[in-house]
Amino acid sequence: MARKIILDLDTGIDDALALAYALGSPELDLIGVTGTYGNVLVDTGVRNALAILELFGRPDVPVFAGPPHASDRDGFEVLEISEFIHGTNGIGEAVLPEPTGQVQKEGAVDFLLRSVRDHGDDLVIVPTGPSTTIAAAVEADDTFAENVHIIMMGGALSVPGNVRPWAEANINQDPAATDLLFRRAHDVTMIGLDVTLQTLLTTEHTAKWRELGTPGGDFLADATDYYITAYETTAPHLGGCGLHDPLAVAVAVDPTLVDLFHTNLKVDTEGETRGRTIADETRLNDPVKTAHVALGVDAERFLGEFMTRLTRIAENT
Amino acid sequence: MARKIILDLDTGIDDALALAYALGSPELDLIGVTGTYGNVLVDTGVRNALAILELFGRPDVPVFAGPPHASDRDGFEVLEISEFIHGTNGIGEAVLPEPTGQVQKEGAVDFLLRSVRDHGDDLVIVPTGPSTTIAAAVEADDTFAENVHIIMMGGALSVPGNVRPWAEANINQDPAATDLLFRRAHDVTMIGLDVTLQTLLTTEHTAKWRELGTPGGDFLADATDYYITAYETTAPHLGGCGLHDPLAVAVAVDPTLVDLFHTNLKVDTEGETRGRTIADETRLNDPVKTAHVALGVDAERFLGEFMTRLTRIAENT
Repeated sequence: MARKIILDLDTGIDDALALAYALGSPELDLIGVTGTYGNVLVDTGVRNALAILELFGRPDVPVFAGPPHASDRDGFEVLEISEFIHGTNGIGEAVLPEPTGQVQKEGAVDFLLRSVRDHGDDLVIVPTGPSTTIAAAVEADDTFAENVHIIMMGGALSVPGNVRPWAEANINQDPAATDLLFRRAHDVTMIGLDVTLQTLLTTEHTAKWRELGTPGGDFLADATDYYITAYETTAPHLGGCGLHDPLAVAVAVDPTLVDLFHTNLKVDTEGETRGRTIADETRLNDPVKTAHVALGVDAERFLGEFMTRLTRIAENT
Repeated sequence: MARKIILDLDTGIDDALALAYALGSPELDLIGVTGTYGNVLVDTGVRNALAILELFGRPDVPVFAGPPHASDRDGFEVLEISEFIHGTNGIGEAVLPEPTGQVQKEGAVDFLLRSVRDHGDDLVIVPTGPSTTIAAAVEADDTFAENVHIIMMGGALSVPGNVRPWAEANINQDPAATDLLFRRAHDVTMIGLDVTLQTLLTTEHTAKWRELGTPGGDFLADATDYYITAYETTAPHLGGCGLHDPLAVAVAVDPTLVDLFHTNLKVDTEGETRGRTIADETRLNDPVKTAHVALGVDAERFLGEFMTRLTRIAENT
């Protein structure tokens, strides 16, 4: 039976690739997408998710909107660096038809709570943006934290951050939310920069999508080429773009793609290292470890899976 | 054949325990001790090393003095926190007879260079203080960096630092030296706070040394009790003192005590995170990994080995 999955996306180019990865994976049953802020505003991300689901022939997947900003902030504006990397429309200025579907009336937090209640261990939630929505679910219901299985893209443990020397972009948006998640949730796998900067895509890969001659192939190639170009400026030493969000979905399909380090995490919510993900020294010797941090990845195998799955979904759409 | 070992110590209470561990390990052949600054001044550390070697019946082990401060500083003063943890004499105000032996005329750097030339892969160097001396050897001779095997106590990768939120004490003394070591040396195992804060000793353990009724047992118990009392103030959540330096020696005897994460490291030498040990993002995808970071430790097995070896050396002296 396919594993039920919910993606919590701030769609975003690599979020779009993560969504395509999920749709191209028969091992997964995508029961919903929740939209958060980060790479884009919530409204933009929700619109992008709806448009991509329709492009790939899956208008049946419901999309829910989450909180528009961190609970300890008054609002949210897209950072200049986010616009540089993802474009003003979030998908690298690629053009998609306006979606015909609508966002659900039920909010994202309620949908997450209901889904964990209904599906328990059969469900995995993959957040690829700030932890605001999922932390709200943790706060709303203690049994959620006990029962939820999370594979999140975010954080950096063994490598420097990408928005500050110690902070990764998703965590930096709402450090208190991720801290709550790390302290309360019983099963969080962290797919951070430690591994996602080892999974690099180049224009040689995107050229294969363009050769398909389909709207889906064109979209993936256009959006990703924009992303690769931005990486040439922001991280020229890498020689490609990091496949951050898709790797989290890939681990939901096949956990053996990564090597996990088991520990108990916290986020520094104040002071000079605000936004840093690090082991909680007060729980260092607790035999129960709730966080599983990916420190190694079989990048070659992942890239193969990534190209297979995204080509599968793009060649018929 | 016993593995040749050189200890580079800033002796220090846990340095004294590391020295005792080496002396109590028939698998090791201690060919020399080099003295550095850190917990104490070089002169104090050298005096302590000589006195401890004589206490444990090994006046034959030569002791060499290294540089008295970081090469980019004008001098060195013992930090208040170091005096609090190790006492003004470095060994918790424990009283040892003035040593009859003298420090060698040959300097520590020359001794390290000569020893790696003479013994190559048969030798391991275990620095437990700042990297100043060993970095000077790296700078003096390129073949040293290629051929040396180092198991160092220092740094913190997955956990916060102990002198700053991002910096461990040894690295913080001379960030540039450790950075040079990480960038140039081909084989560095890092035994940092990640694991040493999992290896905890209590007064129940030290009481067993006191029961021996020997000068050696009394010394180990007196010094370590001082150290444990300091830990009750500086890190009350631990419930014991961290066996930092002895763990590095233990890994030289038996590498299977720890789980290693293979990466390429750097030290932040400037800016807000000066003194932080972290992966070098520019070498993240280099297939050759020169650093081996201990992230897990079999604390129970190590504690057993520690008590066996230190009791062995203390019961006859």
